[in-house]
Amino acid sequence: MHNFSIGVDLGGTNLRIAAVDEQSRLLEKITLGTKVALGKDHVIRDMSGAIRSLGGKHQHNGSLLGIGIGVPGIIDMKTGMLRESPNLPGWAGTPVQQEIEQQLRTRVILENDANAAAFGEKWLGAARDVDDMAMLTLGTGVGGGIVLGGRIWHGMTGMAGEFGHITVDPEGVPCPCGNRGCLERYASATAVVRMAREAIANNVAPGLSRAANSDPEFSAKAVYNLAIQGDEEARKIFRRVGHALGIVLADLVNALNLPMYVVGGGVSSAWEAFSPVIFEELRRRSMVYAATAPPSGTSEAQGASAQVEPGGPTRTVITRALLGSDAGLYGAARLPMVSRT
Amino acid sequence: MHNFSIGVDLGGTNLRIAAVDEQSRLLEKITLGTKVALGKDHVIRDMSGAIRSLGGKHQHNGSLLGIGIGVPGIIDMKTGMLRESPNLPGWAGTPVQQEIEQQLRTRVILENDANAAAFGEKWLGAARDVDDMAMLTLGTGVGGGIVLGGRIWHGMTGMAGEFGHITVDPEGVPCPCGNRGCLERYASATAVVRMAREAIANNVAPGLSRAANSDPEFSAKAVYNLAIQGDEEARKIFRRVGHALGIVLADLVNALNLPMYVVGGGVSSAWEAFSPVIFEELRRRSMVYAATAPPSGTSEAQGASAQVEPGGPTRTVITRALLGSDAGLYGAARLPMVSRT
Repeated sequence: MHNFSIGVDLGGTNLRIAAVDEQSRLLEKITLGTKVALGKDHVIRDMSGAIRSLGGKHQHNGSLLGIGIGVPGIIDMKTGMLRESPNLPGWAGTPVQQEIEQQLRTRVILENDANAAAFGEKWLGAARDVDDMAMLTLGTGVGGGIVLGGRIWHGMTGMAGEFGHITVDPEGVPCPCGNRGCLERYASATAVVRMAREAIANNVAPGLSRAANSDPEFSAKAVYNLAIQGDEEARKIFRRVGHALGIVLADLVNALNLPMYVVGGGVSSAWEAFSPVIFEELRRRSMVYAATAPPSGTSEAQGASAQVEPGGPTRTVITRALLGSDAGLYGAARLPMVSRT
Repeated sequence: MHNFSIGVDLGGTNLRIAAVDEQSRLLEKITLGTKVALGKDHVIRDMSGAIRSLGGKHQHNGSLLGIGIGVPGIIDMKTGMLRESPNLPGWAGTPVQQEIEQQLRTRVILENDANAAAFGEKWLGAARDVDDMAMLTLGTGVGGGIVLGGRIWHGMTGMAGEFGHITVDPEGVPCPCGNRGCLERYASATAVVRMAREAIANNVAPGLSRAANSDPEFSAKAVYNLAIQGDEEARKIFRRVGHALGIVLADLVNALNLPMYVVGGGVSSAWEAFSPVIFEELRRRSMVYAATAPPSGTSEAQGASAQVEPGGPTRTVITRALLGSDAGLYGAARLPMVSRT
């Protein structure tokens, strides 16, 4: 008998739900579309129904410890209210936690999706051997999460880890957040496509131009495919991604001196294309990194896993995430296992 | 009877030593010059002698709990070794903690001076009502410290809080650390004088030029004196200080979501001249700040103290330090009172 919990990754497109036991075994995973257009009541009903059936199906395994839900947006941690969510229009101000608790009569923990992803990588992924870590999630936007002493660092109001809006260039590209030159403008999937379209508009990128014309859903993935085929303009775009990430990672290393920083999210599939520039920038821009970097030629180039010495870690490891799109799902499932009621 | 401890602020110029009791009463404070030129053995002997006499004089009050020493530079927290210190030439690699423990046969805790200042402001200064805070110390350089849950956040190797080397402008002024555009290049006393000399060299600053010619020790203080007299070029320099600080504070607010950020050090005397720009930048560059700022027109303009609500703080307060140059001394004295042996 092993107790289990249910993790939910509530995205703007997919609604994924998994039952995971305390031994980190995945009991079952289901993926539904998030029917955002049908409104939040519909989505919450879909979600509650799927959780209920998953919970019933696996109750022979042990007790259901609770439900963890990762949601894109800003959450009021004290009340479990979703304050703001660009990907879930119409949800602002919804007491999501309370509504689902009422439907399911089970404890629910709401968490920001990037925090949940960080927590997942800490539990089972790249950061499983360290207690302190930060993660950047490069998706449509750039999210972030911090884990300190094995727990998510929420900050005062649950808004910590907004790494996507750290300033890379104070006079740079305007960001909807009101700032200019935010990391998100250079290191998200949206940014990769914008930079590609800029290069096309400037008539300097015949390869990108052909790809965009033949592909109505021209995406960051298409730009990456060209980069690995050696297209110079596509490669340049990922060097800009690495440049921006390197600046922000240097800032974080200088400020926090953590043993591990994990880079995940869809854009991290292009790790080979942008990570060399990250390490160049880090060595140049962070004396803390220079003093604590893994011996060069070893793990750094591959972004390998942490070698934790007996007295605790002494090297700063920057590495890609291991759990792919499941990081947030595992992290959400972990929440009820560790939180005090 | 109240137990007491002795705090030491070992600077490149002054060596200050204070006996403080657990009720935060200052029993005695002495200031010596740091005779850096006579070498570290001499300085350590001076320091040990003064500590010994202060300890003996106040032992009728209670037990001496230990010695806390704030030192500029990078400290190996595990061994109490000073790894690097630009202001204390020849001290790199010195096991300062061990040497003083041997001379005094009392427990010694070595701490980075900016961390000690943050800890002092948390104990008795601007941040006394919050458990989580960060401090920027604007002196010859720019130092920083983070306190989380009432304790100094050291990071993996004791190097956390290097806010002076967060990147403000990736193509900006080169910094001896190897980076370009570090905060320290725009917000330290050294930076204020450099910007003044640049304005003089560009022939745009007659007021600054007169002041520099008549004052062989032309300092940041002289630039500030001109600014408060209304000299436009001098005022512009402090606006640049505020601009750089605003960018870095926005980064920190976005990343950490702390209830309080304290600005101290000598340059913070010019708070009135640079703080309005800090708040402009913060509102523009940090959505986390915008969501949590104190109601405008209340405390923000004056940078007033935190109003902590019963359920914990919910506002982001940016304010100047309260303890002046004693912050590090009080913080150092506090160390033996709270540290586990």
